[in-house]
Amino acid sequence: MDVYGSIVLLSGPSGAGKSSLVAEIEKEIKNIFFSVSTTTRQKRDGEKDGVDYYFVTKEQFEKDIKENLFLEWAEVHGNYYGTSLKHTIDALKVGKIVIFDIDVQGFLQAKEKIGELITSVFVTTPSLTDLKSRLIQRGTDSLDVIEKRVQNAKKELLFAKKYDYFIVNDDFQKAKENLLQIVNVSKVKTSSINLDNFIKKWLE
Amino acid sequence: MDVYGSIVLLSGPSGAGKSSLVAEIEKEIKNIFFSVSTTTRQKRDGEKDGVDYYFVTKEQFEKDIKENLFLEWAEVHGNYYGTSLKHTIDALKVGKIVIFDIDVQGFLQAKEKIGELITSVFVTTPSLTDLKSRLIQRGTDSLDVIEKRVQNAKKELLFAKKYDYFIVNDDFQKAKENLLQIVNVSKVKTSSINLDNFIKKWLE
Repeated sequence: MDVYGSIVLLSGPSGAGKSSLVAEIEKEIKNIFFSVSTTTRQKRDGEKDGVDYYFVTKEQFEKDIKENLFLEWAEVHGNYYGTSLKHTIDALKVGKIVIFDIDVQGFLQAKEKIGELITSVFVTTPSLTDLKSRLIQRGTDSLDVIEKRVQNAKKELLFAKKYDYFIVNDDFQKAKENLLQIVNVSKVKTSSINLDNFIKKWLE
Repeated sequence: MDVYGSIVLLSGPSGAGKSSLVAEIEKEIKNIFFSVSTTTRQKRDGEKDGVDYYFVTKEQFEKDIKENLFLEWAEVHGNYYGTSLKHTIDALKVGKIVIFDIDVQGFLQAKEKIGELITSVFVTTPSLTDLKSRLIQRGTDSLDVIEKRVQNAKKELLFAKKYDYFIVNDDFQKAKENLLQIVNVSKVKTSSINLDNFIKKWLE
């Protein structure tokens, strides 16, 4: 059967455990492609081009915007961030499952462009209190940044209904199992299969 | 978390293995409700009311149609067949997963009425030749009936794109695994969750 790849978008508050979940999915499912974002911000120590981000110049990014080469993009504090359509399509062409970690605004852009190809998942903590304590425990953000993340989480949660699936990460194993199954079934979505071709052959 | 039940609709040619698949799903997933159709046709030897069908009079059925009590219904060779909305809603209210075996016309009616609550799956054999040999091997139908089923399958396959998922039953274990995962993830669809309530509590 001719299979296209499929696209799984993951959103949710920073601290809900998306990165840990995706790391588990990458271990368990072959043929997965974790989409790397493109950015114009400076490379930090230890970051690798093509792994953490694709680092490009502002001129290049703006040229790509004009040529409609981004699935979604945004400007944050004077830097551009975006998801290159080319990398996604290249991965889909060879039947890969493409996973993105994406914010709500990016998801809404992507949904408008290629909604029928997307499986979308919103991941959250069981409560706001729980989110705060996770962020404090993680110890990577200042209290100011944590407060910003919390305020952002409140806003993003209101868009959860626009997603296909909703995972509450209160039990990591269960959340992982749910996401694993969602990614697996994305392969048998009618939009992931070349049905016209299948039907033609079926009738022979 | 407040969970509504979810509805999984299964269509596909007679002979594609839907009944065997559903039997396996019923073994593996608790809390499942296999929807029984209502009909006005005569009860055959060995059939049980409420198990094979709900057997009702023509008058009763027509009254229920008028009162909009069917999710879908059709008249076939002078008899009515339909899916009672009441039984479905009762099962959903207690958080069950409702599974139906339904033809394409019935699916289209149901999709129009409650599309956002439905997960739909089209199951087929790998080929038309394969379907024919399965029907002959099964030995329950005359050649005339088999020919009718084959012609019907050809027509129904053209609607496969309208379904969410497409399973080719060439490897029963794989097909079963696919369906099992589809049924499982239907529980974390945003439409299966009382999100308004969750968000309210989350923000407290």
